[in-house]
This record gives sequence, C-alpha cells and structure tokens, in this order.
Amino acid sequence: MSDPNASPRIRHVLVRTSHPGNIGSAARAIRTMGFARLNLVRPHRFPDPEADALAAGAPGVLDAAQVHAQLADALSGCTLVLGLSARRRGVTLPELDPRAAARQAWQAASAGQQVALVFGNEQSGLDNAELAHCHAMVRIPSVEDYGSLNLAQAVQVMAYELRQASLEGTPQALPEPGDPPAEMAQMEQFFAHLSQALHDIDFHKGRSPRTIELRLRKLFMRARPDQRELRILHGILAEAQRVKRDSQA
Amino acid sequence: MSDPNASPRIRHVLVRTSHPGNIGSAARAIRTMGFARLNLVRPHRFPDPEADALAAGAPGVLDAAQVHAQLADALSGCTLVLGLSARRRGVTLPELDPRAAARQAWQAASAGQQVALVFGNEQSGLDNAELAHCHAMVRIPSVEDYGSLNLAQAVQVMAYELRQASLEGTPQALPEPGDPPAEMAQMEQFFAHLSQALHDIDFHKGRSPRTIELRLRKLFMRARPDQRELRILHGILAEAQRVKRDSQA
Repeated sequence: MSDPNASPRIRHVLVRTSHPGNIGSAARAIRTMGFARLNLVRPHRFPDPEADALAAGAPGVLDAAQVHAQLADALSGCTLVLGLSARRRGVTLPELDPRAAARQAWQAASAGQQVALVFGNEQSGLDNAELAHCHAMVRIPSVEDYGSLNLAQAVQVMAYELRQASLEGTPQALPEPGDPPAEMAQMEQFFAHLSQALHDIDFHKGRSPRTIELRLRKLFMRARPDQRELRILHGILAEAQRVKRDSQA
Repeated sequence: MSDPNASPRIRHVLVRTSHPGNIGSAARAIRTMGFARLNLVRPHRFPDPEADALAAGAPGVLDAAQVHAQLADALSGCTLVLGLSARRRGVTLPELDPRAAARQAWQAASAGQQVALVFGNEQSGLDNAELAHCHAMVRIPSVEDYGSLNLAQAVQVMAYELRQASLEGTPQALPEPGDPPAEMAQMEQFFAHLSQALHDIDFHKGRSPRTIELRLRKLFMRARPDQRELRILHGILAEAQRVKRDSQA
C-alpha cells in the first residue's frame, strides 16, 4: 500500500548537471511516479527555458527545486543516501541493483527517514568525493559494451522502481474492463449453439465432431469472452444457420 | 543468465513518432539494455540529425532500423504483441504491468518466438485500431494525476524490465503446449477471411462492419490461436461461405 507520507521524504539530487533539458526531463520523470522533491547541486544553467519545456508542466517540481552550492547541503537531514553510478575501480561501497535500492529506500522513507538518490554529471558521473557522501551505490544493469544511460532515463528507471516498491503489497484487484464476463452457463449455451451450427452447415462431413469441438472449446475458454462478445458470436452462428435453411427452402 | 538468442527476437516498434529526438533516445535506451531491433511505423521525420544526436552513437541501432507504412508490416512474424498504453475506457485487452509483461516477453523470446513491444504517438498514444493488433496492454504504473511519461522514457522502463527479466535466471523455456502459435501475418489472413465470410453470409445487413470486426479482432487476439486452431476456424468460415454459394446456385 502506498504510504502518502513516504514520497515527500524521498528527494532526487542532480549534481553538476550540464544540460538544463535533462533537469526538465528528470522533473517530469519523478512527477509521473509520484515524487516532487528535486535538489540541484551547482547546475550549469538553472532556471532555463529548456528545462521548463522538457518538464512538460510537471506541476510545481521545477518551481520548488532547491539549488545548493555543495552536495552536503542537498543531503541535509538524510539518513540514507544512494548514489547512481557505473561500476568503478577502487570504490568500496556496497552495490545495489535498482530494485533492491528502491525497496530499501521506500522502507526507510516509510519508517520516517529522509532518503536521497544522487545522480552525477552527464559525462563524468559522480566523482569519488561525491560517492563518499553515499551509503551505497546503485548500478543500473546495462550491458557491458554500451553502458551509458541518459541522465533523465536513469532518473526515470529509479523513480519507476521506487513507484513499484510503493505499490508492492497493493493488491492488483483491477476492476474487470468492459462488459461483464460471460459466466459458465452462458459459455455452455454458446458451445451448444456452436456444435449445432457446425452440424447444420455440415462442417464435419461424417467425421466425429469431438476433437474439433474440444479444440474450439479450449480456444474460446482461453479468450474469456464477455457477454457482448458472446452475443456477437451467437449472431454469427444464427446467420450461418439461416443461410443453410434458406438454401434448403 | 541472459540467453543471447532471445534479445534479437524482441523488437521495439514506435508508431507515428512525432519527434525524431525521441527515436534517437529510444535507440539509446534499448541499446543500453542489450536490444537492437527498432521498427518505425510512419515516423514523421526519419532519418534525421536530431535522432542521430540523441542516439549518442548507439552502435548500429538507427542504421538498422526498419521503416514501415503499416503497423501490421512491422509485426510480421510476431506471436506476442504488447502495446504500451494508458488505461482506456472500452478497451478490453488484458492489462499487464511492465514487470509481468517483460517476464512474459522474455520467456516467449527464449522459447523461440518473435515478440514486439509497441509504443504509440507522443500526444495520442496507440489508437484503438493499433491496440487491436496487440495481445495485451502494458500500463506503466504512473500516478493518477500526472500520468504522461515521455515516449523514450517509457521505452527505457520497458527495456530495463526486459533486461531485468533476462538476468533473473534463464527461464525454464517450456515449449508451448500444442501447435506452434499463429504469427501475425496468419492472424491478418484470418481476419480478412472472417470479414469476407461475414460479408458473404450478409451478417451485417447494411450496418457498418467496423465495430463488430474490431470486437471480434480483440476476442481472437486475446485467445492467441495456434496454427491448428486457425485452420479449424478457416474451415468453418469456408463452410459457411460454401453453404451460401450453394444456396445461390
């Protein structure tokens, strides 16, 4: 179940971002997943029309974004700091994948903690000094030979996993779309009609209808027709039967 | 462990994309996750320098991208077609979340099937006619009050989930029970036959066939007939047509 108090405790921190467009796209990305706190450490250009354009009106996220001179300031109050990074020699931080990181972050936020996800510069990522502010590193499992996710897309992946973490445990229990599903007595009526119609149009030509009927039954059971679809199917069968009767009249 | 033969069986299909930059970003997104097949249906501009710039050199993806006039052409050979879409009134496709969809797609690809993920236009998404080519809908669980993911970011989320599915351990890759599943060109032949047969037996009685045909299409897409089932259905249609012809003779 999504805890409405947990989301505001999670902040996304962008460090030394070069392209204002990425700030806008990141704002939109976190907003679609239910987050609103964006912290910017020494952005190259902000505010900027390109950021506004790519935020696609994500209500309020850019207006409320805080700008900081130092990463430490952006992390004020946080008890869990996770830095997104490619694998790096000489860094001894524990490494989490996005799913595990999101679960840990959501759990911490649900328990009242402040949590930060930190994203480095587009070209160089987080440097070692910046990673030293983090409790763990999060590596998005990209392929070895081409690992470079766009910054805003890395933000999207993490925000998506946070959203999934927030929904875990929420029963899916979606209302059935469309018309009411056909119940079994209606399905049996349909199968009986199908069987009669195939007989009437002499589909089987003296062979046993059993195998074919069983196959058709499986097919339509699998499709789980709703009541309106079943009416259409009945209509088609009735029409084929009528054509046959007319041909004999 | 990732099955190296499964990735090439998964294609990402972008339909009526307005912004070439999104094509480039999508190319980069899938490439980071180990995929390379991009199919474009009536892109507004392609090739385009903006697409090249945002692909960030994703080796070969844009060069190898195929362009199609019709969605059906882009889906040729596919036995599983998943359409990304917001929830929609009146659409009765089964709805999967990205994780469940990715697992199903990866399993199908590992079992040798061709799989397509279909993404609609930036403003309007997939229309109902386009969704009628899909076996199921995938909904990214964005928040209710601001649901609009950028196209390339939706591609990134799905490609990321596919990558995660590929890393979850080799699926058991159970052979599909029964006959090989029908591929999309065979489904189109069936729909054409169905349409002709309904016309021949005068099912529509002057009403427009469009709504009924769309409903039947959804029903049979959902059922995912195998090749033998499709032969039976063709047989029934042919028999109904024969009866009609005989009645006129």
